[in-house]
Amino acid sequence: MTITGNQLIGGSDTPGKEATFFAVNPATGEQLSQPFTGAGKTEVELACALAAEAFSTYRHTSLSERASFLEQIAQNILVIGDELIDAAMSESGLPRTQLEGERTRTVNQLNLFAAMVRSGDWLGMRHDPALPDRQPLPRPDIRLRHIGIGPVAVFGASNFPLAFSVAGGDTASALAAGCPVILKGHPAHPATSELVGRAVQKAVFDCGLHVGVFALLVGPSIELGAALVADPRIKAVGFTGSRGGGMALMRIAASRPEPIPVFAEMSSLNPVVLLPGALATRAESIAKSFAVSLTKGAGQFCTNPGLLLAIEGPGYDAFLHAATEAIEAAPAGTMLTPAIHGVYTQQTANLAKHGALRQVVRGQPGTGPHECQAALMVVDSSDFLLDPVWHNEVFGASSVLVRCPDLATLQDVIGHLEGQLTATLQMDPADLPMAQQLVPKLEEKVGRILVNGWPTGVEVASAMVHGGPFPATSDARMTSVGTLAITRFLRPVCYQDFPEALLPEVFKH
Amino acid sequence: MTITGNQLIGGSDTPGKEATFFAVNPATGEQLSQPFTGAGKTEVELACALAAEAFSTYRHTSLSERASFLEQIAQNILVIGDELIDAAMSESGLPRTQLEGERTRTVNQLNLFAAMVRSGDWLGMRHDPALPDRQPLPRPDIRLRHIGIGPVAVFGASNFPLAFSVAGGDTASALAAGCPVILKGHPAHPATSELVGRAVQKAVFDCGLHVGVFALLVGPSIELGAALVADPRIKAVGFTGSRGGGMALMRIAASRPEPIPVFAEMSSLNPVVLLPGALATRAESIAKSFAVSLTKGAGQFCTNPGLLLAIEGPGYDAFLHAATEAIEAAPAGTMLTPAIHGVYTQQTANLAKHGALRQVVRGQPGTGPHECQAALMVVDSSDFLLDPVWHNEVFGASSVLVRCPDLATLQDVIGHLEGQLTATLQMDPADLPMAQQLVPKLEEKVGRILVNGWPTGVEVASAMVHGGPFPATSDARMTSVGTLAITRFLRPVCYQDFPEALLPEVFKH
Repeated sequence: MTITGNQLIGGSDTPGKEATFFAVNPATGEQLSQPFTGAGKTEVELACALAAEAFSTYRHTSLSERASFLEQIAQNILVIGDELIDAAMSESGLPRTQLEGERTRTVNQLNLFAAMVRSGDWLGMRHDPALPDRQPLPRPDIRLRHIGIGPVAVFGASNFPLAFSVAGGDTASALAAGCPVILKGHPAHPATSELVGRAVQKAVFDCGLHVGVFALLVGPSIELGAALVADPRIKAVGFTGSRGGGMALMRIAASRPEPIPVFAEMSSLNPVVLLPGALATRAESIAKSFAVSLTKGAGQFCTNPGLLLAIEGPGYDAFLHAATEAIEAAPAGTMLTPAIHGVYTQQTANLAKHGALRQVVRGQPGTGPHECQAALMVVDSSDFLLDPVWHNEVFGASSVLVRCPDLATLQDVIGHLEGQLTATLQMDPADLPMAQQLVPKLEEKVGRILVNGWPTGVEVASAMVHGGPFPATSDARMTSVGTLAITRFLRPVCYQDFPEALLPEVFKH
Repeated sequence: MTITGNQLIGGSDTPGKEATFFAVNPATGEQLSQPFTGAGKTEVELACALAAEAFSTYRHTSLSERASFLEQIAQNILVIGDELIDAAMSESGLPRTQLEGERTRTVNQLNLFAAMVRSGDWLGMRHDPALPDRQPLPRPDIRLRHIGIGPVAVFGASNFPLAFSVAGGDTASALAAGCPVILKGHPAHPATSELVGRAVQKAVFDCGLHVGVFALLVGPSIELGAALVADPRIKAVGFTGSRGGGMALMRIAASRPEPIPVFAEMSSLNPVVLLPGALATRAESIAKSFAVSLTKGAGQFCTNPGLLLAIEGPGYDAFLHAATEAIEAAPAGTMLTPAIHGVYTQQTANLAKHGALRQVVRGQPGTGPHECQAALMVVDSSDFLLDPVWHNEVFGASSVLVRCPDLATLQDVIGHLEGQLTATLQMDPADLPMAQQLVPKLEEKVGRILVNGWPTGVEVASAMVHGGPFPATSDARMTSVGTLAITRFLRPVCYQDFPEALLPEVFKH
């Protein structure tokens, strides 16, 4: 496929009106040769006008038409072949196997949403039949179904150039809901975005849909995203990224004449509680699997285990010993962008100088230009509770081990945490009574609780929750992974005393 | 029951620290004799601390315990007897039969939510069983259920002193979701609020629940509501009232360090489309039933038919003739408060002077101090489209009839409307083709579409939607009436690879 560096709007590609930009290969530090035009207000205006127009036809597609469209996107992504993986590797520094896995996940996710669309469950249909003889007043016949909320702006994430980007979970769930999508591509991977964007654009064409159903706008300017969220035709926003970025979009959305919901997945430490029974029997294997989870993909996952909580004692000592060995041996991995690497290096360097630190363990230093040197910082619970700096997410392979004197203190630490995507219990059967005390506390803080696993690796399924109380997300009532994610983009409509001939088609089956 | 004029917090009643205030009987214009102490920051602090504490136990009540609690509230409200109706009459000016009907509705609503809680459907449980042999990676066992979001602040509405007030729909759905409720009572009906508040407080006691599950704070100050919404322990807000009031709460909620959702039901014109076939055969009966719907309860309903759209012709003329007769004969009704009456009088007087008006029809003038004189304003569609003043809700028995030259113009008018709670089609079988064209447009603007009814009278049922795009509500994805209203206060939690013994009870049945 030819990369043009243009904006994909209205079924064609057009150069953006803003300044040209280039991606950087983080593994080499070199600027890539393909120029990309930048999108701005002109492109936002055009894409939003088309999306609003497309909504009034796209939302009426049958379950089968809409499902086929999602499957066609999946198919078209696979057709790109190795070119997509190569582009994503050179723009993200992520390893081939990880990107191949991510492509599989992206395609499966589209197919899962297609199956869900076909099932019609998401319509949430309800019917209260008329009760003409009810006293004192008859009951009318009322029916309910859900429809799409309108055009949705989706922000591609830096860390999943496929699964949380152009045709990722937000896009799949918005399209499944019947909402046109305007995708604000992440400027770190514009070629990857364009390739996938063309696959979606081709699927729109293949399925004979209105060209406004999808647009891809890419550019490095903050104004681009701001203009998109501010546009009155946009009715909801999906975002995965930093707390600062998510909060900025929330502010824009809340100050519009018509405020709209922003579903931002932002920041999470993903606490892992190492219970004494588990540490007594398998401290070493827990430490090793922790190091693997921490350093996988240079730690650049929303669900990276950035916080460990444990009670001091021999098990704790054994864990720390083994974790130190494992982290010290961990090779550095290329980070997604020079900027992300710069922030990581600065944050970990600052933490490593913190007066309250008991110990700092560092991984192997990098040999390339933007590599992430793993870090494990050890602090006492009393110090952890004193300084909010420990509550800031460090994006990358850095984690904080909090040494607690007893279970009550550990619970106190949990009580002081902000909202999180996940919490994990490493436990043995002997830990059950402690775990039973902790689960109710953790439920109030997180969207997903795991037992004896690691939070990285988020299954795309019907029962998944990738969400959680603020600041993990902007709306704890929602998830951005799994089929329940569609509810973000749906609203109910009630039909009272409709004659059969006037009812929407979905009620007629 | 003795009215003390105190704040109901923590299972007891305590005088508020703010200035004393009095309610006014709008039918006489006289101040009522019972003094009420005002609540402020001190009371917010105490109630929020208790609510946060209560959440951690209340949310674990069994389905049956929680359902019994809701039923006990309903029972305790009935036990108050005539004293409640008398108090509400003297504080709201609403007629006895209407308030008795509202009490029935309130009690039925609590019982409906109780039945829903018992069913467990609202838990939205999902289960993806483990697939240990899946390639390339096994699938973990994941389960999902919903839990309450945390303490909820509910603002009592002026116009439904029972059904949208202390134990109204927001309270019932929040308590059903497992969320403690802090009720900010409307200062126009403090005695009614206290009576119902005591019924709820007694139910908390009867059922042996934590005293923080419910508090009633009443006071006339704007700071009271603002402090409540700003409190970090409050996790969501339910509000029914004016656009200005709702927007103010939304701004406070959005600017908190931890932003929270505000479910505000604010402003709606509730357009009624009078199709030519219906007008040709029954213009007079439509006009009569319109006048009844418009003037019922002095028009003080969120779903009051404040806008009529019709195509000019003999049917239109017949309707206008009959509507003029019906409105001119309509007696005035007492409004809820002097302030509401003042705003209504000012708004209708200003509209009646509007240069674009074709005609103004007024109802019978009032004989009491705060009576609502009905109004029907007639404008051409071209003028309606020119001035946004026609899009402002007039709270009371005032409606605007828009004369359209043809269906295309009528559709254009619909296209220019803001979000609405309802839209209604008055149609005969001959109007079906036109109705089929209009329904898709209306779906994008409203939460409920009715055929041959009137929007006042909102059935409390499983398929009801009392919601709609902004500014009808702050979140088009939700409803504040019907069992679906519970979803406003729920969030999903996922349990991954939990051993049976650690799973929450609800998974064990």
